[in-house]
Amino acid sequence: MLHAPDRGFTNAEFEQRTQRVQLAMQADGMDALLLTTPADIYYFSGFLTQFWQSPTRPWFLLIPQSGKPVAVIPGIGLECMQRTWIDDIRVWAAPHPSDDGVSLLVATVKELCGDSPKLGVPMGQETHIRMPLNSLSQCQKELKSGHWIDATQVIRSVRAIKSKHEIEKIKYICSIASKAFSRVPTYELTGRNTIDLFRQFKMSCLELGADDCAYLVGAAGPDGYTDVISPPGPRALQKGDVFMLDTGCVWDGYHCDFDRNFAVVHASDEAHRAYGILWEATERAIEALKPGMTCKELYQVMMDAMPGTDGGNVGRIGHGLGIDLTEPPSLTAFDETELKENMVMTLEPGINYGNGLTMVHEENLVIRANGAELLSTRASQTLPICQRM
Amino acid sequence: MLHAPDRGFTNAEFEQRTQRVQLAMQADGMDALLLTTPADIYYFSGFLTQFWQSPTRPWFLLIPQSGKPVAVIPGIGLECMQRTWIDDIRVWAAPHPSDDGVSLLVATVKELCGDSPKLGVPMGQETHIRMPLNSLSQCQKELKSGHWIDATQVIRSVRAIKSKHEIEKIKYICSIASKAFSRVPTYELTGRNTIDLFRQFKMSCLELGADDCAYLVGAAGPDGYTDVISPPGPRALQKGDVFMLDTGCVWDGYHCDFDRNFAVVHASDEAHRAYGILWEATERAIEALKPGMTCKELYQVMMDAMPGTDGGNVGRIGHGLGIDLTEPPSLTAFDETELKENMVMTLEPGINYGNGLTMVHEENLVIRANGAELLSTRASQTLPICQRM
Repeated sequence: MLHAPDRGFTNAEFEQRTQRVQLAMQADGMDALLLTTPADIYYFSGFLTQFWQSPTRPWFLLIPQSGKPVAVIPGIGLECMQRTWIDDIRVWAAPHPSDDGVSLLVATVKELCGDSPKLGVPMGQETHIRMPLNSLSQCQKELKSGHWIDATQVIRSVRAIKSKHEIEKIKYICSIASKAFSRVPTYELTGRNTIDLFRQFKMSCLELGADDCAYLVGAAGPDGYTDVISPPGPRALQKGDVFMLDTGCVWDGYHCDFDRNFAVVHASDEAHRAYGILWEATERAIEALKPGMTCKELYQVMMDAMPGTDGGNVGRIGHGLGIDLTEPPSLTAFDETELKENMVMTLEPGINYGNGLTMVHEENLVIRANGAELLSTRASQTLPICQRM
Repeated sequence: MLHAPDRGFTNAEFEQRTQRVQLAMQADGMDALLLTTPADIYYFSGFLTQFWQSPTRPWFLLIPQSGKPVAVIPGIGLECMQRTWIDDIRVWAAPHPSDDGVSLLVATVKELCGDSPKLGVPMGQETHIRMPLNSLSQCQKELKSGHWIDATQVIRSVRAIKSKHEIEKIKYICSIASKAFSRVPTYELTGRNTIDLFRQFKMSCLELGADDCAYLVGAAGPDGYTDVISPPGPRALQKGDVFMLDTGCVWDGYHCDFDRNFAVVHASDEAHRAYGILWEATERAIEALKPGMTCKELYQVMMDAMPGTDGGNVGRIGHGLGIDLTEPPSLTAFDETELKENMVMTLEPGINYGNGLTMVHEENLVIRANGAELLSTRASQTLPICQRM
């Protein structure tokens, strides 16, 4: 396991991020960018809090054409925002019965950009606007949404290329999850269900230094599982089960996202074979990956290694990774995004086998000038067997 | 600590929830309800997954005027949704390059309600629409948003009144967190910071049976803290510190939400006094609470017990609780919502003291016919002291 990097980022790093997005905004003719989601706001301000889990209050960050971002936020967040690099913080008393930040947001946008701002707003895939529709409609009216510009690509292009310090954080949380996965074969499984097993795994992650292990999905069943996004269940594990845990642990606001498969005492030849195909498809992608390839090309490398399969039916076989558990781009037959140096990606091929069973297999990596650098500790080449039952 | 209740809900319970909302929809003239967020979708379908943490895909649940809800979801969720009481599940291959569920959603709405549906959509405070703005705009156009009706109140009124089984789940997770808080004074604090302390607390919650302890905020400082929503930090705890942990642990999709304060070895008279005022304000609210009171009246009971203070500047001094960490209504000077039997609420008065310090104090309760029933184990009447330093 690695040594913990520093928490937070320097002001210089936030300046660079802001300048990079301002350059992209300029190219698209935007006067300001309006951000409303936890990941976008953390990325440009450093504002990190689990308080986002309360859906009550909207939060806004505006990025003008030049200079620092401006925060328009509920008063409860003032102290926490004041510890970031942001200077201009405007607060209202939220929740408010009739005007939950809208008039303050509108006034701030007009002050920064005039009455008909060319406001950049994320509108495309994998985005949403985190504010009530009534408030959004009022902003659309008062800030003349006819002039708004879709900022999805502008934000995506900046966030996709990770800095040295972002990569360090992802690498660190990957090393924690890798270590936690390596403990699973030592767990006693007799009489236990996946609810217990998942709980023990989360405790392992925390004990090893994760800030959180809130994302943990998976399944278990005789010789395999049928579903890859479910919470654990009460069925007792049995000899001959194959189970999978897929975790997005977090450290300082950055995720890992990978899974591991295990068999209980023994597994069928079919399960071993499915595992081998997925391992090999991942291996080929790791070997082939070079900056300049497209997502579609990398997708094809993996699909070519799994002839006659469909990649497991989950819509894609890999994606970006960072502040969000899943980020663009996607490894699909249609995503033509160019893979660039310092993008962090998952490889996640899936395969169907047996009687309606499915298996997924995942690694995390960063793209370097000369190819892939693994962030997760490479999965064992053969399906690991848990003997303690 | 309590015994774990059953996981999940009966189909009869989902039927009742659906019928209750359908009655409210009828009164407001809605043809169908469109839901897009994890809490609303879990409430009416039983679809529970941490996969919501991936922002990539939108998910939709439609509630027609009669009959069961209809799910319009990404294919990756089919298996998990099939295990709920929902029969009509329509899937698309997501992510999709150009049509991420919009045409399927539009077609389904038209099939259920005709070409000019009076679609109920949450638009008000504490809501948002979890889909890309471009997709939303297209739905607004194709489904004639001029006829849409704000469904905020319709959904809120149904979700606010908890069933027996919902209350059992909240009571259970409250009992786990209460037990975890009772362990804090046994923690060794010498040389430790709040990052370590929070991690140990999360492990205690998991060990005691919580599914997750993803919400844990708080702070520590000499004689008190200044911020109530921040993540833990690297500063070593010292004698004379007052610290607070505020947790929203989860069990089977239901939250607790309460905090506890502790002093390290000793605290000033001012800190003890602030604690006593908050404890007493909470006590008066517990005594006064009766169905039929308004939120505003309950707010006033607490404020009257803290003369010359402002409630701690966080915008409200209590709120609803359930699937979401914070739910309507709010204990504020302006919320005239009537408090009814089987609502689950937090009481959360705050106070400022000393040189810019703040303190918050919180309990969880359910409103019964004859008054408040505490769900959290009542906080100690005096500021607890941790001696292990």
